[in-house]
Formats: sequence, C-alpha cells, structure tokens
Amino acid sequence: MTEALRHEQDMERYFDDIEVGMTERFGQYQVTREEVLDFASKYDPQPFHLSDEAAEKTLFGRLAASGFHTAAMSMRMMVDHWQATGTDKANMGGIGMDELRWLKPVYPDDTLYCVVKLIEKIPSRSKPDRGVVKYEWTTYNQHDEPVMRQISLGMLKRKPG
Amino acid sequence: MTEALRHEQDMERYFDDIEVGMTERFGQYQVTREEVLDFASKYDPQPFHLSDEAAEKTLFGRLAASGFHTAAMSMRMMVDHWQATGTDKANMGGIGMDELRWLKPVYPDDTLYCVVKLIEKIPSRSKPDRGVVKYEWTTYNQHDEPVMRQISLGMLKRKPG
Repeated sequence: MTEALRHEQDMERYFDDIEVGMTERFGQYQVTREEVLDFASKYDPQPFHLSDEAAEKTLFGRLAASGFHTAAMSMRMMVDHWQATGTDKANMGGIGMDELRWLKPVYPDDTLYCVVKLIEKIPSRSKPDRGVVKYEWTTYNQHDEPVMRQISLGMLKRKPG
Repeated sequence: MTEALRHEQDMERYFDDIEVGMTERFGQYQVTREEVLDFASKYDPQPFHLSDEAAEKTLFGRLAASGFHTAAMSMRMMVDHWQATGTDKANMGGIGMDELRWLKPVYPDDTLYCVVKLIEKIPSRSKPDRGVVKYEWTTYNQHDEPVMRQISLGMLKRKPG
C-alpha cells in the first residue's frame, strides 16, 4: 500500500494525475458517545443507536453508531484527504455508491480510518473536461477490522490545457 | 401506488407481513439552510455545501445539501415510517445499499418525501427467525423530482411462532 503523499498547500490533483491501482490510507476519526447519540437522535432514532440498554438485546450488544453516521464520518475523512492532496480542486461532486455494506458495528471510542483504491477511470465522451472515477473505499476500526466497504463513484475535472 | 396504512400503536409488522411489490409513500422533511450548513460543516465541508457564493461556480448553482445528508434525512423518514407501521419491532439492522445515485441537488427550503417498493424477500436458510428484504427506495423533492435512489438491503424478524 502506498501511503498518501504529503502535498503542498497549492497542489492540484486532477483526473489525469491518479492511476488505477493507486491506494491511499488516511484519517483518524475518534467516535464519541455524544456524537453517536446526536446523529442518531436526528437521523436514525432506533433504540440500538440510542442506548446501551436497548442495544443489549440486539445483534449490536451495546450502543452502536448508525450506519449512515459511519458513512458520514468516512466522508469527513475523505474530504479532509482531498484537501490535503489537492483533489478538492478537481472534485465536481459525487455520483453515487455501489455495493455498500456495513460489515461490523461501530462503537463509541472506536477510532476509524479509511483505505481507498482507485479501480476504474472513465473519461467522459461528451464532456472532455471531466471523467468518472471509481474507488473501492473501506473504513476500518482500530483493530484493523473493516466496518464498512463500498464502491464510490465521483466526477473529477481533467487537467486544464 | 398503495399509501401506507395507518396502524395501531401496538402494531407489529414482520418479514411475513409484507409482500413483494408493496409500495409505500411517506415523509415530509423540510430542509433548512441551518441544517444543510450544520451537517456539511461536520461531515462534508466542501465549498458548494457551505455557501451560495462557492456553489455558484459549480454544477450545483447555489448552496446544496451533502449527498450524505440527503441519505441521512431519508433514513429519518424511513425510521419514522417503520415506527408508524410497527416495522420497527421487526427491524434487526441494515445490511447495505446498492446502486445509490444522487440524481438532483437538494437545496435549502426543499421538502422531501420517500417512496419505497419491496422488490425481493429472501428467507434466511441458516437462521429461520429472520429474512433479508430488498427495497427500491427513492427520495423526491416537492416538484416530484427524484433526488436520490438506491436499493436498500435490510434484515427483518419473521413472525414469532
């Protein structure tokens, strides 16, 4: 695995600058009980995302983060990584996600990180200034267990000129 | 399309109680500027999710919600619907999402609703107390334009006894 390179603040990284197979690890997200409860009470108020007592009787065993919260925390790590590598300047927005699976529960006091591997690049035929990138994007916990995996589809600008 | 039935508070709806083809419409989520900014600043701090000025130069045109926020708001509508129909008592947790696509931007002052169609039921072979359900789940705005669509996979308890 290639570690993410440290880039200059004014770095720009376009569709043309990344190659299929390129793999990067990034992020260190501390999951707090307060944030798990805050997200769940707004967006996923199921009992096993709101209290240890209710979660005890379920597959989770104790208070676990909403899967949508895990996705959101992973996105925050991705955005920070894009900004650190200049990819933010090329990003035109997300297209979608395929084959997303929640593989293990995420618990308060877990620390998450991501590994992203570029699996496909598709230059746009109709719009020569952009292309679609497909990533395998996996979120891990501090035991190096994958907790969520997906295929992410995004649109990146091509290098100007 | 069948409208969601009104059920009693003590209603329970299990894997066995829903049929392939069943379609339900639910939800009425008012998207506020404050919430768009709050979610984006925590989980998706890209310029087009943080200000009209930055969004003006992009495909979004003006401040737009994070796609992960749209997913989270949709989940809130789903959980409320589960609770209204007694499906919450059968829900064992999400498995994943396939083919999720963000189809149109979601903007402050939009009002969202969902339409869910059950497309497949798979009884568990190894665990006779549960089964997998596959839904086509679409989120619409107030102009009845689909803004997000996905295939959702969940696990429901079978009717006891």
